[in-house]
Amino acid sequence: MPAESLTIWTYDWVPEGPRGHVRDIRLRWACEEAGLPYDVRSVPFDDRGAEHLSRQPFGQVPFIEDAGMTVFESGACLLHLARKSDKLMPRDPRGEAETLEWTIAALNSIEMVTVPWWFIGLSNGTSNPLEGWMLLRLKQLDAVLTQREWLAAGRFTVADIVMSDALRVPKVMAAANSTAIRSYVDRACARPAFKRAYDGQMAHFARGGTSRGNA
Amino acid sequence: MPAESLTIWTYDWVPEGPRGHVRDIRLRWACEEAGLPYDVRSVPFDDRGAEHLSRQPFGQVPFIEDAGMTVFESGACLLHLARKSDKLMPRDPRGEAETLEWTIAALNSIEMVTVPWWFIGLSNGTSNPLEGWMLLRLKQLDAVLTQREWLAAGRFTVADIVMSDALRVPKVMAAANSTAIRSYVDRACARPAFKRAYDGQMAHFARGGTSRGNA
Repeated sequence: MPAESLTIWTYDWVPEGPRGHVRDIRLRWACEEAGLPYDVRSVPFDDRGAEHLSRQPFGQVPFIEDAGMTVFESGACLLHLARKSDKLMPRDPRGEAETLEWTIAALNSIEMVTVPWWFIGLSNGTSNPLEGWMLLRLKQLDAVLTQREWLAAGRFTVADIVMSDALRVPKVMAAANSTAIRSYVDRACARPAFKRAYDGQMAHFARGGTSRGNA
Repeated sequence: MPAESLTIWTYDWVPEGPRGHVRDIRLRWACEEAGLPYDVRSVPFDDRGAEHLSRQPFGQVPFIEDAGMTVFESGACLLHLARKSDKLMPRDPRGEAETLEWTIAALNSIEMVTVPWWFIGLSNGTSNPLEGWMLLRLKQLDAVLTQREWLAAGRFTVADIVMSDALRVPKVMAAANSTAIRSYVDRACARPAFKRAYDGQMAHFARGGTSRGNA
């Protein structure tokens, strides 16, 4: 990989369950869409020590290194990458604003409900106190996606990367029970850049299982 | 108000409980910090019809109108406003990246837990399935805020507007039980721009109580 390329940091290994859904896939996907060269390096999944926390204060992944800077939070990394290529975000003010609002909507209106809903479902029984709120949000999103192919600016943008990645969680898709949301996620995941990103992540974690610490 | 100024849209009225915490305060605060002229207009709290949904697909507030564009999601509006004034975000790449990552961290690592935790607490008894996760996040944030005055770039930015606004919810502050977080929120809320934003929101909703629909 070229030394000047940007580096996406993720875990060296994760259990099989989250493979294909670890958020470095969002950044791989964005780089693949934009044709930005990148390499992938690993921090230990089992030991999130001071060095990791100095780059990601919540002990999460991914974070990126780019031109000597570290940027954490996948949403922030996506908006950072979007400034590098108009394949990820249009350059006119209206197109940029639409990309921004839908990226944040995915992070702070959809994931703010779907992620805790999913988390609670891991341990609770049939009752989930976030169920009604989540179904309302998904219904509102269904109304939007019934009307359009992509969320922002009439074209694919980073907003679709984060939104479709938030939605494609199997339990969320089943709960949504929406043709429009299903079609949207299918469209997004049919993109060659998504497939390359997905295959890249799966291969990375498969290698990590036999040889942790190697990227 | 000057016709060319930007408009912050919020509800005409809300119950007393959320007054002072409706998210238009984040945008008022940013405009007050930056010296950007703005006016405030209202959508009905009781009737979130098609016109509102066409501008805010989740029926929420705030959204802004600026130069003929509508932008929704308070986080997106803040980043949009941050492009207008370096009082909200530094202009060097590292300072901008830090502002971006901490703004998104507030939205997608802190609020993604604190808001559903608070919501569940409204109806559930003493048991809250998000308690452990939230306390972990607040502890991680405490470790950061013990070391610094502001989150990004060694100075006040929009990241501090959204983070301190997310943290100053009384139940969250009580759960955090952190001197560093308390001091940080006190510092943020002592800023004259916050006080003007807070007083503006309180006056707006007080007026709405007697005359809904008037901004």
